[in-house]
Amino acid sequence: MRSEIVSIGTEILMGQITDTNASWIAQQLPALGIDLYWVSAVGDNLGRLRTVLDRALDRSDLVICTGGLGPTEDDLTREAIAAVLGEEIFVDPELEAYLRGHFARRGNAMPERNVKQATRTASTEALPNPRGTAPGWWSERHGHALVAMPGVPHEMRFMWENEVVPRLRKKLGDVVIYSRILKVIGLGESAAEEKIRDLLHTDNPTIGTYAKEDGIHLRLTAKSDLLEQAQALVDDLDVKVRAILGMHVYGVDEDRLEGIVGQLLLEKGLSLATMESCTGGLVANTITNEPGSSSYFKGGLVSYTNEAKIAFGVPATVISEHGAVSSETALEMATAARQRLGASVGLAVTGVAGPSEMEGKPAGTVHIGIDLDGQRRAIDAFYPVVRVQMKRLTMLAALDLLRRSLLGEAPNA
Amino acid sequence: MRSEIVSIGTEILMGQITDTNASWIAQQLPALGIDLYWVSAVGDNLGRLRTVLDRALDRSDLVICTGGLGPTEDDLTREAIAAVLGEEIFVDPELEAYLRGHFARRGNAMPERNVKQATRTASTEALPNPRGTAPGWWSERHGHALVAMPGVPHEMRFMWENEVVPRLRKKLGDVVIYSRILKVIGLGESAAEEKIRDLLHTDNPTIGTYAKEDGIHLRLTAKSDLLEQAQALVDDLDVKVRAILGMHVYGVDEDRLEGIVGQLLLEKGLSLATMESCTGGLVANTITNEPGSSSYFKGGLVSYTNEAKIAFGVPATVISEHGAVSSETALEMATAARQRLGASVGLAVTGVAGPSEMEGKPAGTVHIGIDLDGQRRAIDAFYPVVRVQMKRLTMLAALDLLRRSLLGEAPNA
Repeated sequence: MRSEIVSIGTEILMGQITDTNASWIAQQLPALGIDLYWVSAVGDNLGRLRTVLDRALDRSDLVICTGGLGPTEDDLTREAIAAVLGEEIFVDPELEAYLRGHFARRGNAMPERNVKQATRTASTEALPNPRGTAPGWWSERHGHALVAMPGVPHEMRFMWENEVVPRLRKKLGDVVIYSRILKVIGLGESAAEEKIRDLLHTDNPTIGTYAKEDGIHLRLTAKSDLLEQAQALVDDLDVKVRAILGMHVYGVDEDRLEGIVGQLLLEKGLSLATMESCTGGLVANTITNEPGSSSYFKGGLVSYTNEAKIAFGVPATVISEHGAVSSETALEMATAARQRLGASVGLAVTGVAGPSEMEGKPAGTVHIGIDLDGQRRAIDAFYPVVRVQMKRLTMLAALDLLRRSLLGEAPNA
Repeated sequence: MRSEIVSIGTEILMGQITDTNASWIAQQLPALGIDLYWVSAVGDNLGRLRTVLDRALDRSDLVICTGGLGPTEDDLTREAIAAVLGEEIFVDPELEAYLRGHFARRGNAMPERNVKQATRTASTEALPNPRGTAPGWWSERHGHALVAMPGVPHEMRFMWENEVVPRLRKKLGDVVIYSRILKVIGLGESAAEEKIRDLLHTDNPTIGTYAKEDGIHLRLTAKSDLLEQAQALVDDLDVKVRAILGMHVYGVDEDRLEGIVGQLLLEKGLSLATMESCTGGLVANTITNEPGSSSYFKGGLVSYTNEAKIAFGVPATVISEHGAVSSETALEMATAARQRLGASVGLAVTGVAGPSEMEGKPAGTVHIGIDLDGQRRAIDAFYPVVRVQMKRLTMLAALDLLRRSLLGEAPNA
């Protein structure tokens, strides 16, 4: 199946947003066995939009659009699709009732312009959007499918997974493609590829590597006539990769590092407290992104000054002797967090977020400490990158240290 | 001048890289008065590349390509351009000598495959690339220009600024475009448009509205023969928009909410401390994303249990009387944070992040409190959306309350 992505919105052409939707969708297609031939972006202009969609429906079996489904006059995706299909747009009473209910449940009346989002054409199927007000559209012309999704990334992804993928699977033929992502932490993309290079040059199964916000993703993909066979090929490769990468593999598919450590804490009946300086609350924030984290996360301290560290229980002598940015202070911070918040595990981070140096230590210097029921361990790292990236890498390293410690890794592994 | 961007490379279609070149170039064009009508990505396939470039040269005055200029067999941009121009490719002896020198200066012999990068066609001008081995190409057909630059972002940007922009200025007429973004918080996109609807339907200047992670962006744009005139048109519209939206406008262009509140704290010589439950550290994390925040941010407390709130100084009686999720507790948290961390301002958030309800209050319930040197104020909100979005909206509302309080807004405004 030959596919094409069309991203709609003048803000993309004005460079005001980078189109992350197109690359996210591009990543989903190989696992479905769908080839992507064209990606384009077009502004909120009815004439150009019609031209693009018309050509796309001619040359591609599947056209995937994002954006332009809002309630304002700028939003012209629906009008363009209707024109390309040669159909009229009308208000669907069921959709309208659903949308009015959506607003009513939030205690608001629906603005009249939002009626625009309750429209469709005769042959178009509306795709529910429980995360927003813009339903998607699924249309077909001469067997070629066109799907329109909202441009807001989390709404689009939810609709893709729950509405679009099931419809695509129906349209697809007999070849089964099975795919699994192994998530890797503590290794860069080149280092990971170097280690598994002998596994990289096969046709079926294949491995693709992707550098992501939460580490390196390895996508293992196999094709076969039978799901079981494809799955067996991936299972086999999975074992080989893990034999090489070991503890660096922290999860699969939708696993998130904060979910993995949360699960480990729950299984072991342990609770967690944090103390952070350079990450400024990012560790606690990430841990609490996990639903249910209130059952193991006691709380966190963000100690952005030495006075705050001391007030929270870090001995002043340790700071004056070793500096606020040191392994010794990181360990004391972990212990203080654990004791102050009555948790079984304390996790602490201190470092220099930059851009300026601190205590003669360069921006990027990091010390992470953990106190697991009195067993203490510290690691160092150096991330000389811009502030927000430095915070993110440090947070990942802290969660990874927590994960390894909970799994019982020996301190010098 | 009507322009078009073509990003070349199969790795873009595979989702292996996000095409940041296109959005960077898109951002450069308005200041040159060049309109961007189309953006597309195409793989390393000679046939499809020819089709795309041929159509682009027909419909656009300027075609900007990136990628596909490397030395390998996959790199087909030069071949496609030559085919579209109907010209032969030959090795340019001067270019070849330059390239061999480039390698020699690094102590290497040039691999023979790199001769491919020393080619051009009769009507094509090679653009120097001092940062890499791939020269660019500048070609014209019937007065329409086509420029090809390398895909490596820092090479491309250097070539754009030093080689492409000077050539474009020569081709361009006199029209100047001036643009400014007003950032709006506390209003949805529809509500903001509703309020300024009378300003929306003009040709010059224009307003575009965009929903973003940090609020609603209003883009004010004007064209004129003179920069001063375009700027005056935008200034005039800016005044009208602010007269309607008032305090909802928090900044312009690159301003960020955390930067705005940081600047206000610095100007007033005030320091800040936070206590958060439902946002789990996101408020502190956002504040500390701002470089220099250590000069006004004392620290934060993440009180994920009632015990932690009480340990941090919230009176147990207030929690038992009004509940942990209440205005009264939010105010006590703000005061406790301020006092515990010796700050002039305490900012606190309590709420139900979900998915489950708490104390009989539904997921999405939010109370935010602020204590500014003893002056206390609380606001309520309701964000019944998924956990991570709920945290983000709550964080924005908390920073906005801080901003309004620092600006001296009366509690009932």
